[in-house]
Amino acid sequence: MSGSGIWPAGVRCAVVLSFDLDAETLWLSRNPRSADSPACLAQGAYGPKVGVPRLLEMLRRQEVRSTFFIPGWVVERYPETARAIAAAGHEIGYHGYLHEKPESAEQERELIDKVKVIMSRVLGTTPVGHRSPLWECLPGLVDVLCASGFEYASNLMDADLPYLHAATDGSGLVELPTSWLYEDAAHFFFTLQEPARRPIATTDTVMNIWTAEFDGLYDEGGILVLTMHPQIMGRVSRVRMLDQFITYVKSRPGTWIAPGIDVARAVRPKLRAIPPYPAGGRPTPSPAALPRSSHAGSNTP
Amino acid sequence: MSGSGIWPAGVRCAVVLSFDLDAETLWLSRNPRSADSPACLAQGAYGPKVGVPRLLEMLRRQEVRSTFFIPGWVVERYPETARAIAAAGHEIGYHGYLHEKPESAEQERELIDKVKVIMSRVLGTTPVGHRSPLWECLPGLVDVLCASGFEYASNLMDADLPYLHAATDGSGLVELPTSWLYEDAAHFFFTLQEPARRPIATTDTVMNIWTAEFDGLYDEGGILVLTMHPQIMGRVSRVRMLDQFITYVKSRPGTWIAPGIDVARAVRPKLRAIPPYPAGGRPTPSPAALPRSSHAGSNTP
Amino acid sequence: MSGSGIWPAGVRCAVVLSFDLDAETLWLSRNPRSADSPACLAQGAYGPKVGVPRLLEMLRRQEVRSTFFIPGWVVERYPETARAIAAAGHEIGYHGYLHEKPESAEQERELIDKVKVIMSRVLGTTPVGHRSPLWECLPGLVDVLCASGFEYASNLMDADLPYLHAATDGSGLVELPTSWLYEDAAHFFFTLQEPARRPIATTDTVMNIWTAEFDGLYDEGGILVLTMHPQIMGRVSRVRMLDQFITYVKSRPGTWIAPGIDVARAVRPKLRAIPPYPAGGRPTPSPAALPRSSHAGSNTP
Amino acid sequence: MSGSGIWPAGVRCAVVLSFDLDAETLWLSRNPRSADSPACLAQGAYGPKVGVPRLLEMLRRQEVRSTFFIPGWVVERYPETARAIAAAGHEIGYHGYLHEKPESAEQERELIDKVKVIMSRVLGTTPVGHRSPLWECLPGLVDVLCASGFEYASNLMDADLPYLHAATDGSGLVELPTSWLYEDAAHFFFTLQEPARRPIATTDTVMNIWTAEFDGLYDEGGILVLTMHPQIMGRVSRVRMLDQFITYVKSRPGTWIAPGIDVARAVRPKLRAIPPYPAGGRPTPSPAALPRSSHAGSNTP
Repeated sequence: MSGSGIWPAGVRCAVVLSFDLDAETLWLSRNPRSADSPACLAQGAYGPKVGVPRLLEMLRRQEVRSTFFIPGWVVERYPETARAIAAAGHEIGYHGYLHEKPESAEQERELIDKVKVIMSRVLGTTPVGHRSPLWECLPGLVDVLCASGFEYASNLMDADLPYLHAATDGSGLVELPTSWLYEDAAHFFFTLQEPARRPIATTDTVMNIWTAEFDGLYDEGGILVLTMHPQIMGRVSRVRMLDQFITYVKSRPGTWIAPGIDVARAVRPKLRAIPPYPAGGRPTPSPAALPRSSHAGSNTP
Repeated sequence: MSGSGIWPAGVRCAVVLSFDLDAETLWLSRNPRSADSPACLAQGAYGPKVGVPRLLEMLRRQEVRSTFFIPGWVVERYPETARAIAAAGHEIGYHGYLHEKPESAEQERELIDKVKVIMSRVLGTTPVGHRSPLWECLPGLVDVLCASGFEYASNLMDADLPYLHAATDGSGLVELPTSWLYEDAAHFFFTLQEPARRPIATTDTVMNIWTAEFDGLYDEGGILVLTMHPQIMGRVSRVRMLDQFITYVKSRPGTWIAPGIDVARAVRPKLRAIPPYPAGGRPTPSPAALPRSSHAGSNTP
Repeated sequence: MSGSGIWPAGVRCAVVLSFDLDAETLWLSRNPRSADSPACLAQGAYGPKVGVPRLLEMLRRQEVRSTFFIPGWVVERYPETARAIAAAGHEIGYHGYLHEKPESAEQERELIDKVKVIMSRVLGTTPVGHRSPLWECLPGLVDVLCASGFEYASNLMDADLPYLHAATDGSGLVELPTSWLYEDAAHFFFTLQEPARRPIATTDTVMNIWTAEFDGLYDEGGILVLTMHPQIMGRVSRVRMLDQFITYVKSRPGTWIAPGIDVARAVRPKLRAIPPYPAGGRPTPSPAALPRSSHAGSNTP
Repeated sequence: MSGSGIWPAGVRCAVVLSFDLDAETLWLSRNPRSADSPACLAQGAYGPKVGVPRLLEMLRRQEVRSTFFIPGWVVERYPETARAIAAAGHEIGYHGYLHEKPESAEQERELIDKVKVIMSRVLGTTPVGHRSPLWECLPGLVDVLCASGFEYASNLMDADLPYLHAATDGSGLVELPTSWLYEDAAHFFFTLQEPARRPIATTDTVMNIWTAEFDGLYDEGGILVLTMHPQIMGRVSRVRMLDQFITYVKSRPGTWIAPGIDVARAVRPKLRAIPPYPAGGRPTPSPAALPRSSHAGSNTP
């Protein structure tokens, strides 16, 4: 029944409902001046204050477990929220300390160590799933994550099936690929701060897009990793839409809704490791090799 | 019947229809060069010239009272319009003098005093409800507003229920939270001036969004604070949509449509004060604590 | 039957279908570097090459006359197109020489004189209707236009009915107001050149918006001035949508579809002159009076 | 049966399904820093990794041949993908080496020579169809292409029928015009990198737009050149939409779906050469002739 050959018996298609609980750090990492803006901070706070309780209640009723990627700062600031998420059976994944993009492998390691201490203290566990803040990754990220004990990442948009990044030390890291198409912010987030986000889609529009993608991935035996933010998806009309989407997904036999770590562990034995971006047989030109005008076109696609 | 426990007997859900009557000040505060642009000024003038009469007539027919937040400059320039709004039973709230963002608590106080004098002269009243121009607030705004006699503000986007900001002097300020999702400009406003606004949604789209949110808030017992601008919402097709929305809202038993001040006074006795942003148990990192690269990512959400 | 009291007997609502035939000047005035871009120029050329013949044929079949505002440069470059438009009974209005924004009243006069000579030579007529390129006007425009023999302008967005600007010399200029909502480019134009334009609406969306506005204006007895560009509206699916819109509009009794000049002359005797923007009883603050921070807010509406 | 008089017997309307297989070069040419961004590169890699196999399977089932314009760098990096495309009967066209915009005719010639060598080695053929990267063309492009043996280009947006550019040497180059309206990226591409692209349309929206255009062009006897990118159009829901679109198009008698080269060769004998942009009877003002303020308007359309 598995279209792709990597799924456990009886599974045809996997769905991971992941939430990036950025809270105020979404705003602080977009623009440090947000620290002095109650208006921006309040938008972030909606996530833990309103979005998470509403989502947890819906997920509980649907009997579905998911993954919440939570910055360390948010775990410190909202420890009861983080514990409530874990207590409900959801996986807690890594999402930076302040939703920042590290500038080097060393800084990445320092951030990971810092967050592990926080999560260990507040939650009694350390994360094995990695979601990059700001959708950005360092070129050498795979080696850093493998050395730090991560089992999977969910950052790249180059596949509709899990695959395995080879690490330099011979180990590997499962990738659970996602897409802007599967992200709530791409459709729903509104801000005039650069990079500005608009317009606001209706829930019908996003239900249409996600259902059409799920239908196709279901037939092919692929994976659908939704990436959502409680401060965005937690609005009451959107939680209802997600509720309906889950009901639809569950109605198709062989669909497996699970936290990222469950999927990663289930498929890993079937995966053959491939070199990660951008090295390892994936040559890319250096900036110097590009013609000077290559990014100046007024019609740039 | 009240889902949240803060509503008066018989009330399940509250709806505040608020209008920011910015007129020309919307343009002047976006870009001072608009003062020399008849094309920009005319767009602002549509609000008092066309939008307000059309809205007042519809609200009168629906027997609904609302809140108009009006900059002092607009009260001076369109005194008959302001008086007509008040005479129809609507609340007049504070919205700056020139739709400006003050740079300090002292400047905020000066602006409030200046506008109080104008409103007192033109309308015979002073405002007790506060809506920040440009959706921005100073960190210490709560103390300033409490000291100036304000009873409520409607500025932040962190809740679906009213709550109470604690002031340093022991008093408090009711917050009637709103959302970009509930703002007409987020959906309808078009301008190529930075920050640019586009595209223009259909009224069906916004009716869909607002109805879906209302349905959910109704079931939960929440509050829906629409924030509209007569120069945007006053177009004939949009007034008709709002008319239909009000008819729908009124059809659900236990819905209370009221000016902000009525709601604030009704719920205040039930609310427990919490410290305002960003101080008071809500630590946020200073800009210096943020990694330098945190706001440079090309994929910033 | 007239809702507003200004319409001729039997008329309830007026519709002006206006076209700005910018051709290549749309691109040249957006960015002078377009002069070296065949890709940009070709987009402009689609208007006279394809859009105009398709529109003329449809308008002929519908037996509807409209107004084409044509820059002088376009009249020089496409004289046969301009003559075909005039020969089909449509009004030719003024739209600058190169779709430029003049910097002074003197430059405006020079441009008008230059274009009059061109139109006189190519078409045997001079324009009496004015549409500003780039939707911008000089503060003293009304005086310039009255002195130059213009009878009406269609530039501002502050009303749903024609009105009369008072000129300093005691004469007046009819304004036929329009709106971004009634412009094809606001919905359909796509370019990544700044100011960028996206996304592209479906014809169903624009039919929905224009029909909803027309229905309301019809009931109130207003005026609907559509502003379209042959290079944008001339795409085959959009001409069909406009065709259907015209059929719908004609089905409502008392609707008057006419060129701008016919409407302006019909209503002028009923109009009382009011001072133009921004002078004459319409005080606006100078930029110096604005607080420095007024246009810096990250949440600027 | 041919509405335009240029089509072969039995043909009423032509449809070219073209794909720009930019892969990582889309990102490298937008911003050279993408070379260090696994997140950007992965989005590009989705095209050859997932999009192309999915599209090839659908096109095979539909028994439809198309044109893939592939940068030389992508042919080098994904030689098996390029060979699979050619082996399935599709035309391989020119699309630069690194999706760059050349700065001079000489650089254009060098790029063409470089890519010819690569394609000759990997595919055993050289391209005769030209699609400019970034939708931009040098003013003298037609002469360069004719001298390099190209038979057609598909770059400009000024017609709904093929036409012939006259070259200085007396030869000619067929143009197969396209439109932003017919490009997948204009509707579906999402990125926050400047120039940013958003929002993401539903497949229903694009099906609506493309069907409405096809219906009109079919009646007129025109040409519809879709321009798609496997990294964008290759998502499963979009391949299904394209599948449905092809089924619809094939249901209309007299529709000819063919690679660009087949169409170019079929119509060329019927075409009369016209001078290319911007020279040859198509005078455009030099930037110096434009008023300084022409591109400064805050309301620029």
